[in-house]
Amino acid sequence: MHKRGPLILVTNDDGMFAPGIKRLVEIARPMGEIIVVAPNSPQSAKGHAVTMEDPLRLHKVDVFGDVDAYECSGTPADCVKLAKNILLKNRKIDLCVSGINHGSNASINILYSGTMSAAMEASIEGIDSIGFSLEDYSMEANFDPCTPWVRSIMENVLGNGLGKTKLLNVNLPHPSLGPIQGIRVSRQAEGRWEEEFVEGVDPRGQKFYWLSGNFVTSDTGPGTDINALRQAYISVVPSVHDLTHHEAIPDLRSLETLGPRE
Amino acid sequence: MHKRGPLILVTNDDGMFAPGIKRLVEIARPMGEIIVVAPNSPQSAKGHAVTMEDPLRLHKVDVFGDVDAYECSGTPADCVKLAKNILLKNRKIDLCVSGINHGSNASINILYSGTMSAAMEASIEGIDSIGFSLEDYSMEANFDPCTPWVRSIMENVLGNGLGKTKLLNVNLPHPSLGPIQGIRVSRQAEGRWEEEFVEGVDPRGQKFYWLSGNFVTSDTGPGTDINALRQAYISVVPSVHDLTHHEAIPDLRSLETLGPRE
Repeated sequence: MHKRGPLILVTNDDGMFAPGIKRLVEIARPMGEIIVVAPNSPQSAKGHAVTMEDPLRLHKVDVFGDVDAYECSGTPADCVKLAKNILLKNRKIDLCVSGINHGSNASINILYSGTMSAAMEASIEGIDSIGFSLEDYSMEANFDPCTPWVRSIMENVLGNGLGKTKLLNVNLPHPSLGPIQGIRVSRQAEGRWEEEFVEGVDPRGQKFYWLSGNFVTSDTGPGTDINALRQAYISVVPSVHDLTHHEAIPDLRSLETLGPRE
Repeated sequence: MHKRGPLILVTNDDGMFAPGIKRLVEIARPMGEIIVVAPNSPQSAKGHAVTMEDPLRLHKVDVFGDVDAYECSGTPADCVKLAKNILLKNRKIDLCVSGINHGSNASINILYSGTMSAAMEASIEGIDSIGFSLEDYSMEANFDPCTPWVRSIMENVLGNGLGKTKLLNVNLPHPSLGPIQGIRVSRQAEGRWEEEFVEGVDPRGQKFYWLSGNFVTSDTGPGTDINALRQAYISVVPSVHDLTHHEAIPDLRSLETLGPRE
């Protein structure tokens, strides 16, 4: 284990054997003391789940040579909680990086994302946190073009800190778009999943529904994460865990005049 | 089924047999056409998870007399997706209500909450949505004091709509605080869980960790949801699914000058 330099927690939602976390560990390794805690099963689309009803397990695994790595039986948020409380005994973590996810977490996908859930959990604890996601769902995705950019962002954040913002949602453009053009600090585009369910009948004759669907958005103008990605820029969205719609509070004051309705 | 009036989707994260959803159905019933879709197993702290890797099941159940009710094998967000797409065939839903949860979802607990995840999923679809949570974790919680207030809020939202805001996080004070004093439109207080894990050894000699911990907050001043609840007021927090930290974007522009770091 590297005992010198900043303490960096690496995690993801795809588990220890995803190429994306391997690349992230390789990038982080020269920057400080690294600990890897990742789920022992894929946790995509698990949102900001935590495990309360079941016990959790931690197993040390030898995957990254001299880098300490642990598999956790829980969710990405569980990984961060166990890393901080059990493995690191509440030592100060300088940076938490999650990913590199195989697939985009731009727009509203941050809400469903296990990758971003881990980073958000760390940010709630006051830790500078970055979720990295590549716009390519394939397990054979090519992480080479984005690697020097991920390194650059991590070094910058380690050097300067994130300030008021504690959480960055970083999405990396699809390699097929050609060379990365640069970085755009962006806002989360509006969008939604146009759901379709594939209906079927299982071997026992019971009906099932399987989630399918397409992501649709018309909010693709300049300043959005979707716009940046389509132009082969990296999108960086500073993100919060305060979900209050502050501007709406004055409009809703009339609710305060309501009484009980028997 | 009531064929007249607005179409109201009722859901929760505790399942069909929780007293809280029973009460919510009773309150909603005279207001319009009601459909209930709830998970077939407790989904507390499941965050904004959706099920992609497994098929989902829907079973019609006879729990609420003439009100159509379906159990779903997935998460609260899955319930909303299946209700909208399969059961209602994309008919316009006028209001989605989730709860009444047994336990508070004030402050950052909105992030972990299955109750709020269902409401948020509906709000992403443009449906006016309200999550109701009572500050009492007991399955024997007394919903009588809050019932006329829940009715009042629902009637108001059905009558006037929510406008720009699509999602309300409504928390109801603990019955032990005495009569409800009124409604306070509030912001989400800062807070965090001070985690502790209970460590143990299972019957096969394997170590486990079980999540415990206390919610801590010092952000309890006027205007916060925590403040309202402590004074026996109902807190209503208008909430968003856009997690962008908009004010931080200018501060982070310097990231746009970064290049790749080989």
